[in-house]
Amino acid sequence: MNKNIVNFIGCDSEYDQADIVLFGAPFDGTTSFRPGTRFAPTAIRTDSNGIETYSPYCDRDLIDSNIFDNGDLEFPFGNPAAVIDLIENKVSQILVDGKIPFMIGGEHLVTLGAIKAQSKKYPDLHIIHLDAHTDLRDEYLGEKLSHANIMRRAWELVGDNKIYQFGIRSGEKAEFEFAKKHNFIQKFNLDGFSEIVEKLKGKPVYFTLDLDVLDPSVFCGTGTPEAGGVTFKELLTAVMLLNKLNVVGCDVNELSPHYDQSGASTAVACKIIREILLQIRRKK
Amino acid sequence: MNKNIVNFIGCDSEYDQADIVLFGAPFDGTTSFRPGTRFAPTAIRTDSNGIETYSPYCDRDLIDSNIFDNGDLEFPFGNPAAVIDLIENKVSQILVDGKIPFMIGGEHLVTLGAIKAQSKKYPDLHIIHLDAHTDLRDEYLGEKLSHANIMRRAWELVGDNKIYQFGIRSGEKAEFEFAKKHNFIQKFNLDGFSEIVEKLKGKPVYFTLDLDVLDPSVFCGTGTPEAGGVTFKELLTAVMLLNKLNVVGCDVNELSPHYDQSGASTAVACKIIREILLQIRRKK
Amino acid sequence: MNKNIVNFIGCDSEYDQADIVLFGAPFDGTTSFRPGTRFAPTAIRTDSNGIETYSPYCDRDLIDSNIFDNGDLEFPFGNPAAVIDLIENKVSQILVDGKIPFMIGGEHLVTLGAIKAQSKKYPDLHIIHLDAHTDLRDEYLGEKLSHANIMRRAWELVGDNKIYQFGIRSGEKAEFEFAKKHNFIQKFNLDGFSEIVEKLKGKPVYFTLDLDVLDPSVFCGTGTPEAGGVTFKELLTAVMLLNKLNVVGCDVNELSPHYDQSGASTAVACKIIREILLQIRRKK
Amino acid sequence: MNKNIVNFIGCDSEYDQADIVLFGAPFDGTTSFRPGTRFAPTAIRTDSNGIETYSPYCDRDLIDSNIFDNGDLEFPFGNPAAVIDLIENKVSQILVDGKIPFMIGGEHLVTLGAIKAQSKKYPDLHIIHLDAHTDLRDEYLGEKLSHANIMRRAWELVGDNKIYQFGIRSGEKAEFEFAKKHNFIQKFNLDGFSEIVEKLKGKPVYFTLDLDVLDPSVFCGTGTPEAGGVTFKELLTAVMLLNKLNVVGCDVNELSPHYDQSGASTAVACKIIREILLQIRRKK
Amino acid sequence: MNKNIVNFIGCDSEYDQADIVLFGAPFDGTTSFRPGTRFAPTAIRTDSNGIETYSPYCDRDLIDSNIFDNGDLEFPFGNPAAVIDLIENKVSQILVDGKIPFMIGGEHLVTLGAIKAQSKKYPDLHIIHLDAHTDLRDEYLGEKLSHANIMRRAWELVGDNKIYQFGIRSGEKAEFEFAKKHNFIQKFNLDGFSEIVEKLKGKPVYFTLDLDVLDPSVFCGTGTPEAGGVTFKELLTAVMLLNKLNVVGCDVNELSPHYDQSGASTAVACKIIREILLQIRRKK
Amino acid sequence: MNKNIVNFIGCDSEYDQADIVLFGAPFDGTTSFRPGTRFAPTAIRTDSNGIETYSPYCDRDLIDSNIFDNGDLEFPFGNPAAVIDLIENKVSQILVDGKIPFMIGGEHLVTLGAIKAQSKKYPDLHIIHLDAHTDLRDEYLGEKLSHANIMRRAWELVGDNKIYQFGIRSGEKAEFEFAKKHNFIQKFNLDGFSEIVEKLKGKPVYFTLDLDVLDPSVFCGTGTPEAGGVTFKELLTAVMLLNKLNVVGCDVNELSPHYDQSGASTAVACKIIREILLQIRRKK
Repeated sequence: MNKNIVNFIGCDSEYDQADIVLFGAPFDGTTSFRPGTRFAPTAIRTDSNGIETYSPYCDRDLIDSNIFDNGDLEFPFGNPAAVIDLIENKVSQILVDGKIPFMIGGEHLVTLGAIKAQSKKYPDLHIIHLDAHTDLRDEYLGEKLSHANIMRRAWELVGDNKIYQFGIRSGEKAEFEFAKKHNFIQKFNLDGFSEIVEKLKGKPVYFTLDLDVLDPSVFCGTGTPEAGGVTFKELLTAVMLLNKLNVVGCDVNELSPHYDQSGASTAVACKIIREILLQIRRKK
Repeated sequence: MNKNIVNFIGCDSEYDQADIVLFGAPFDGTTSFRPGTRFAPTAIRTDSNGIETYSPYCDRDLIDSNIFDNGDLEFPFGNPAAVIDLIENKVSQILVDGKIPFMIGGEHLVTLGAIKAQSKKYPDLHIIHLDAHTDLRDEYLGEKLSHANIMRRAWELVGDNKIYQFGIRSGEKAEFEFAKKHNFIQKFNLDGFSEIVEKLKGKPVYFTLDLDVLDPSVFCGTGTPEAGGVTFKELLTAVMLLNKLNVVGCDVNELSPHYDQSGASTAVACKIIREILLQIRRKK
Repeated sequence: MNKNIVNFIGCDSEYDQADIVLFGAPFDGTTSFRPGTRFAPTAIRTDSNGIETYSPYCDRDLIDSNIFDNGDLEFPFGNPAAVIDLIENKVSQILVDGKIPFMIGGEHLVTLGAIKAQSKKYPDLHIIHLDAHTDLRDEYLGEKLSHANIMRRAWELVGDNKIYQFGIRSGEKAEFEFAKKHNFIQKFNLDGFSEIVEKLKGKPVYFTLDLDVLDPSVFCGTGTPEAGGVTFKELLTAVMLLNKLNVVGCDVNELSPHYDQSGASTAVACKIIREILLQIRRKK
Repeated sequence: MNKNIVNFIGCDSEYDQADIVLFGAPFDGTTSFRPGTRFAPTAIRTDSNGIETYSPYCDRDLIDSNIFDNGDLEFPFGNPAAVIDLIENKVSQILVDGKIPFMIGGEHLVTLGAIKAQSKKYPDLHIIHLDAHTDLRDEYLGEKLSHANIMRRAWELVGDNKIYQFGIRSGEKAEFEFAKKHNFIQKFNLDGFSEIVEKLKGKPVYFTLDLDVLDPSVFCGTGTPEAGGVTFKELLTAVMLLNKLNVVGCDVNELSPHYDQSGASTAVACKIIREILLQIRRKK
Repeated sequence: MNKNIVNFIGCDSEYDQADIVLFGAPFDGTTSFRPGTRFAPTAIRTDSNGIETYSPYCDRDLIDSNIFDNGDLEFPFGNPAAVIDLIENKVSQILVDGKIPFMIGGEHLVTLGAIKAQSKKYPDLHIIHLDAHTDLRDEYLGEKLSHANIMRRAWELVGDNKIYQFGIRSGEKAEFEFAKKHNFIQKFNLDGFSEIVEKLKGKPVYFTLDLDVLDPSVFCGTGTPEAGGVTFKELLTAVMLLNKLNVVGCDVNELSPHYDQSGASTAVACKIIREILLQIRRKK
Repeated sequence: MNKNIVNFIGCDSEYDQADIVLFGAPFDGTTSFRPGTRFAPTAIRTDSNGIETYSPYCDRDLIDSNIFDNGDLEFPFGNPAAVIDLIENKVSQILVDGKIPFMIGGEHLVTLGAIKAQSKKYPDLHIIHLDAHTDLRDEYLGEKLSHANIMRRAWELVGDNKIYQFGIRSGEKAEFEFAKKHNFIQKFNLDGFSEIVEKLKGKPVYFTLDLDVLDPSVFCGTGTPEAGGVTFKELLTAVMLLNKLNVVGCDVNELSPHYDQSGASTAVACKIIREILLQIRRKK
């Protein structure tokens, strides 16, 4: 193997053998406050060498899994609609090939491309959304496509009763009212997560993890740190339930590595990605 | 409005309409270890644009409040006594005008100016003090006025049985003994906070929050981080009881933004200031 | 004056009295490598208080000048064409009002909005362009509007023989060939700058300064530092010739303050902006 | 006293009077990922002036203790075996002199020198090991001596049933299996710590604290931050049980101060060192 | 020697044998913009181990010199007048003992204490002052004692025709006019330095070096970096002329080490201090 | 091509076609002061995407060259002798295959492995050495193999009259005397570089570039920044003469990227590597 290949640790399968396809979506073009999530996929791959492939939590190992690291998509600058199209195409192709797409953002808007593809394949798609922010604005500074309205756009695709939001602790008043009106499950923390998992068994579930759901003490490397989040152990406990679900796709987003010069935020992202991969994989 | 006005988010009332007057006290002239709190008021105003005006915790919004952001006081350098006088004058004027003063420090010594004014108006003033440090030295390197003896000076003004200290976990042995001798309430954490709130109902209460009461994991942007502090949620829970009290004045101090390059400490300060403002405001 | 107004130092005239109008264009949406220039206008205004209004180099003072600081334009995210339109409209209005527009970027693409407005008013517009990079790509990752092709777009507006590039030391081979073919003046450094000033006397000149023309030793706070640039004194010497010219508009761009945590890059930007303002102003 | 002496705060006894001898082992020569622990002893001594000598937790004061700060050992570069010999010699001498050695690392490999000396003196030596990582590899990139196999080497010296590991949450599968096979106590967290203390009463115990046992939110200044660790209060609670034990030696290692520019990690290290010293000291 | 003694490299003489006495003045209490020079003496001593004792420029070695490192003075906080008194007393004592005082700041105000002592002993004292800033304000925000008016206070002590300022490139218009009126030599750079050295031969000369005379590219670790300064080689060339003069005292000030995280500014300070020491020493 | 391959920009040839073989030697195990050069090869490859493949200085393009990027060697930790053997073996193989080895360090000690291989093939090997430091100690803290004595070891291999040192400005007195005694050419700067090039025409020359030869203003990202170095343009001018020589091997070392958080030092390293590659390549 070429020595300069930098895959996510333990994700060295060939595409054909893989049941999960990892790819990066290094886009931060609509970030309103502090950009930098474009650097996340590279930072995550590089620093993944600082963790192990083995998880003592679930006693599984990435080297016993079939995961292909497809590298990053290449995006034009200043054109969010084109970015979303490119992601939708990629996710669609992975689905056609019978594999699970796992996207590493980038800002949260990238999720829209994935959900467009997923909701076409799975009309009954449910979304589990962990985040500090509601992301339910209709427009943001006049724009329909931004990291601040991704879940509003997602709702337009999947409709009422399909979105389950956890960790939400920031938004405009109107956004909280919108969620209520349209029967979102919405919690400040992860209370009730296991009940939702029970309820969603057997249904196609898309899991989107905005890492700022974590408390900034755990994860300060993000554009808009929001105090009062969940702990790492709380998030880990939730993630370890994912193997009970039919997870049809995932993304992990909003790491902005340069804001945490200790590297701890990137290490947190790597570890939680490993745990998710080990939950949703099929065994070799 | 001039586009270069940088108020704390949602604090755009005129002085005459305001029931709370926010002002900055950018002084760090007696800081013994690592200075930098002088930069806090500006950092807090600027980064307040990264949070929302609405609080989902108490379902209130700063835009429904009447708060005037009066900018920063201007201080001479190297003259703490003059600084304290300037703050006392400012607070006295705000009290004369029937409004609640809310000061953003600066180092903790700035509190002395506020308490001088408050204790003149309210002879029965009680002080709730959240901090990692006792701040009860009599002299510090020969000086009577410093961030290390602010509560000793405050005690000289309000006397025994009036000071309630929470989160205190560092000091000299003599300071802890002094507190005991003079009937301070003094806790390592926030245990008993709600009982104190019940007890102080109806009395004039000054609330002084040294942000280093928070654990350094939550708030590392401060001059002397002290391990073993309270979590953000614990602090938030305490703050949400303030609306039961007759809070006659407040301050929030000891953010030194440059020590936390992630910006998370400043974001924590902004959010807790928002929550305090929403607790002590009168509704529009 | 409201204490929270943060103008560039000494730029406190009213719009009507002003002969120069300063405004910020905090856009970095097409930055390919490392974003962050969106923070430059705020950083420059804040840190301008660290320099003086008086220049001992030319014995002039900003307080004897008439300059209005108009604050920042507000831009939608992810829509470069709209950004350019907003800038063009702003510059056009300033020109209609008989004042000189002085824009603080943002990435270099913002210059396009200014040149669109200027070239409509001045069909014989000449452009003096200081930069490390040619910025002459036709397309960049499929996009026509980006910081990497701003001067190609400018050339489409002003034509051959009108663009004078100094300090250029990076680009694709085809870009250098394009410049040669279309009779650009193009230098690795500032050689011949004074001759060009003599030649352009009396003509309408737009001055666009990409601060990365400076050597990274002087100015590392930028997205793509390029070794081998000019020194501060060389740049200052060039800038001090601008009063010989009919400068109809200016911009200073590509400061990304977060990459230079010492603040020196921002201080350099502030000082060079002061010197340009003092060269192109009319006296009070 | 020479003004340029920088001892750990309150550790100013002479060697002859001391019952604890503190020394630094600034070695990071086998660190695989991110070096920098060589700077820990100096950072800890310097920043120890930001904490107090008095502990309100146990109501004891370092100034009532007899501790000698012996400075740092000097090591050759690139020769781990020689480093371990130098440490072993030092620890042996301190033991011969009837004092308790307290070593500040450096990387975790330095512990091997101490355990070599201790296990010679105490054939029945037990080891309490707090860490995020198993450190049980047999070889690491072909080397027998590295921070990744320190506990494997220690096991070779003390044998089965003697090593108690807490906080362990990362390692290769084979390392976890090795621990199981050889009857290590091994926990993800500090569960059962007090039971182990009861069990080990009267036996000679070496206490080795790899500070990365703490969650990275508390302690990000380390080479390989590993999410999911213990809180400061949990660690403090454990440490406060040490006075029940016959602690024959200690070390605290793996602070890499430069990775936490807030200084909070160093402050955490200083405070926990103070608390351990106060637990294992004899009173003046 | 106690292993925790941290002297400036090669400055290990006893006081009685010394002909130069080095001491630190870690005061930054009147710094108007960005504090931090209080950390300079410690940083300089620590990092001095990164340079050699030998200078290939002048072929001399600190180990052949007699220099005593006296450590730092201890100052009260918030009391500049007391700080100046303490420095004056220290310098007076060193002069009484027939040695040359060499002070490491701290902010520039510390120089006033030294000049008070020196001008009492040497009524004909001349001052060579290298700086970016005039430091000639009469008052600064109402205060007579601050880093912005140190040279005005010095002038009150030594009178007209005695102050030679080099590198000066920032100040208010009135300050430049004051210098002219009182016959200061004042240069933007180091032009004419060697002529001044010739002119001052045999006279008692105090040499005060504000390190911000250096260009920020060389020395960004300072509170108010001012572009357009001298290069390291230019400063070195000037310093190497000092052995022609009767230098009765020196100081080097305004390093604020935390603003330059690369450590280069501290390394520059260490090297220039070594070179000055080697120029003004008497040989062993 | 796999999307996760991160080669140095433009170095995408196959081994068989290549005339230059680039490889990384990420070793910093004997660094005495501040480690971190182990991260240089990865940082250089990653950030090389921020520069162009084309050089306007020499009008050549890496894409017209045949260069293979062989990735990094893997080293054991704590075993410098083994590291040097691995490098010697690698360089020998590249020489056997008729290609030019180009090594990216790592600390300067890595050069020894290369020179061992080269001096076996070329008994008449000459070495051009650019550095701030003499690197001529015989032993360093008792060790024969360290970054402080690499040139002493090299001299033992090639003998007198073969080593040409430029930019040297730091060392012990004995090192300068050693160089003189053994007829080294040794300059503070790059004076006489072109004469040496003329003199060495036709002879086998090894070119070793310790990047700290650059002034810290240009290149602060290194373990021991040493003021008074050469400018980028001076270095570039020297490098552009290399095509006159028979360069049989090269290395570029001592970048420690984490010390320069602006990225400018890494950008400087990338650009100078590009220029060297373009000088020593054969054309496609």
